[in-house]
Amino acid sequence: MGLLVVGSLALDTIETPFGRADMVAGGSAVYISAAASYFAAPIRLVGVVGSDFPKSELEYLESRGVDLAGLQTIEGGKTFHWSGRYHYDLNERDSLRTDLNVFETFSPVIPPGYRKSRYVILGNIDPILQRRVIESMDQKPELIVCDTMNFWIQGKHDELMKTLKLVDVIIVNDSEARLLSSEPNLIKAAKLIMKLGPRIVIIKKGEHGALLFTGDTIFAAPAFPLEFIYDPTGAGDAFAGGFVGHLARTEDLSDENIKRAVVYGSAMASFSVTKFGIKGLKDLSDIEIMGRYRDFIELSRVAD
Amino acid sequence: MGLLVVGSLALDTIETPFGRADMVAGGSAVYISAAASYFAAPIRLVGVVGSDFPKSELEYLESRGVDLAGLQTIEGGKTFHWSGRYHYDLNERDSLRTDLNVFETFSPVIPPGYRKSRYVILGNIDPILQRRVIESMDQKPELIVCDTMNFWIQGKHDELMKTLKLVDVIIVNDSEARLLSSEPNLIKAAKLIMKLGPRIVIIKKGEHGALLFTGDTIFAAPAFPLEFIYDPTGAGDAFAGGFVGHLARTEDLSDENIKRAVVYGSAMASFSVTKFGIKGLKDLSDIEIMGRYRDFIELSRVAD
Repeated sequence: MGLLVVGSLALDTIETPFGRADMVAGGSAVYISAAASYFAAPIRLVGVVGSDFPKSELEYLESRGVDLAGLQTIEGGKTFHWSGRYHYDLNERDSLRTDLNVFETFSPVIPPGYRKSRYVILGNIDPILQRRVIESMDQKPELIVCDTMNFWIQGKHDELMKTLKLVDVIIVNDSEARLLSSEPNLIKAAKLIMKLGPRIVIIKKGEHGALLFTGDTIFAAPAFPLEFIYDPTGAGDAFAGGFVGHLARTEDLSDENIKRAVVYGSAMASFSVTKFGIKGLKDLSDIEIMGRYRDFIELSRVAD
Repeated sequence: MGLLVVGSLALDTIETPFGRADMVAGGSAVYISAAASYFAAPIRLVGVVGSDFPKSELEYLESRGVDLAGLQTIEGGKTFHWSGRYHYDLNERDSLRTDLNVFETFSPVIPPGYRKSRYVILGNIDPILQRRVIESMDQKPELIVCDTMNFWIQGKHDELMKTLKLVDVIIVNDSEARLLSSEPNLIKAAKLIMKLGPRIVIIKKGEHGALLFTGDTIFAAPAFPLEFIYDPTGAGDAFAGGFVGHLARTEDLSDENIKRAVVYGSAMASFSVTKFGIKGLKDLSDIEIMGRYRDFIELSRVAD
């Protein structure tokens, strides 16, 4: 039944206090697919690259069960390039450069074989394109998960509102939640965002974990206490990939299972940040992932 | 055998986006005692006030089982006065005014009847005074808990180092932990602080909860998802009071019970912020406190 992933593929140049990576594979669709590949198959990717995107990384994704039939390659074009520098405590970053390149005119085309996907995750792209993806589906998916960012909240507000009416889950960070709702209190913000359409709201708080709001239930997941964080890039997308991957694998949308999905998402984010680029998401074993899941549960467990 | 509380008694003038309170009773010793009074007795308070501190608030504390034999009253003197204004998201505040008044020359005198107290909590005061309290005890307490702040970390660093060698538990917020350890990563910061003396480190993160470090164990407690926070003043002291109160009540210093104490501390902080000054800590029932404790456990519980 499959998981459809739509988002960016990028070449990232990343500086953190611990090192630097030049032109490494990144982008929301890459991080989401890499993380989700440990849970669900097939994963169907829709995105665009230029001819400079490393073949080895595409082969890696294919080896993980990611279907690239929906990947457009613009011969002679350049892949979306982002360059950023993190501050010393890794909680803030400056974008040094954003070259949209082939991403500027990206229009997602959903191959016919993808259109019955039961799980859909829309990475952080123009809300008009997100909506076009939803409208391309042959049948209503079980679950549509959507990411967005300040750029769209401010710049394409009305379009985003239309898209949000169609999605089941929105994943945003705390500042995006506050901006989207015009409400500083995150609990009130989540309730306001639910009124915009999504019945499930996830607010990511970086090193402080994530909050899940579903119906009247609130679930607080801590972040994993890591001593060494090399590169926070893509942590949010790794979270989203683990989250939706677990749900696609289990096909169980109960509140309890959605909580578990948040913990799996947190686990994948915790792996992602330990190496530069998507390296932290490679070569994981099911035992490692299950172990990290259990460590998360233990982290906030209190014996009676 | 009792809980000794040493700290400030203050008259606070507080502005938040939701209102204002003028010259209301506050200070670390007041918040700590008020919160701990739901757990342990007797509570023995050491501090100083001028003749302007409201009698009704002292009577309230006495009615809660707080022994005021160690309270110095300077006739004609003025109580420590703090005035502050919180920003719209309540995460930051500006101190508008700090008049030390009788607190400037405060020197804690521990009455003989207090000197066998098995639990001691030292509110945020000069580390020299904190050490003097410890050295006044007739016997080594079971547990010494200590708070401090940037002012002492920077201004009386060497004195603070001497004091930290003598304490079991340090409670600081995230920015204080980073400053004290010169380390931005909180996990590494906690390990470095442990080397300074305390075997238990608690890092408060405001709306993001608290982290407990004891031995090799890390415990992450969320903050309670409150829609209405009227006044964050004293939340950290309410946390400390609930924390040490639960330990003094149970006389159980196992890791599991220390985790429970963190949750009780979080519960008391969550009550404290719902009203101005110490009002949020008044008139609570054991059932309310136990209910909030259970709500906290539920908040981060994942069913297998």
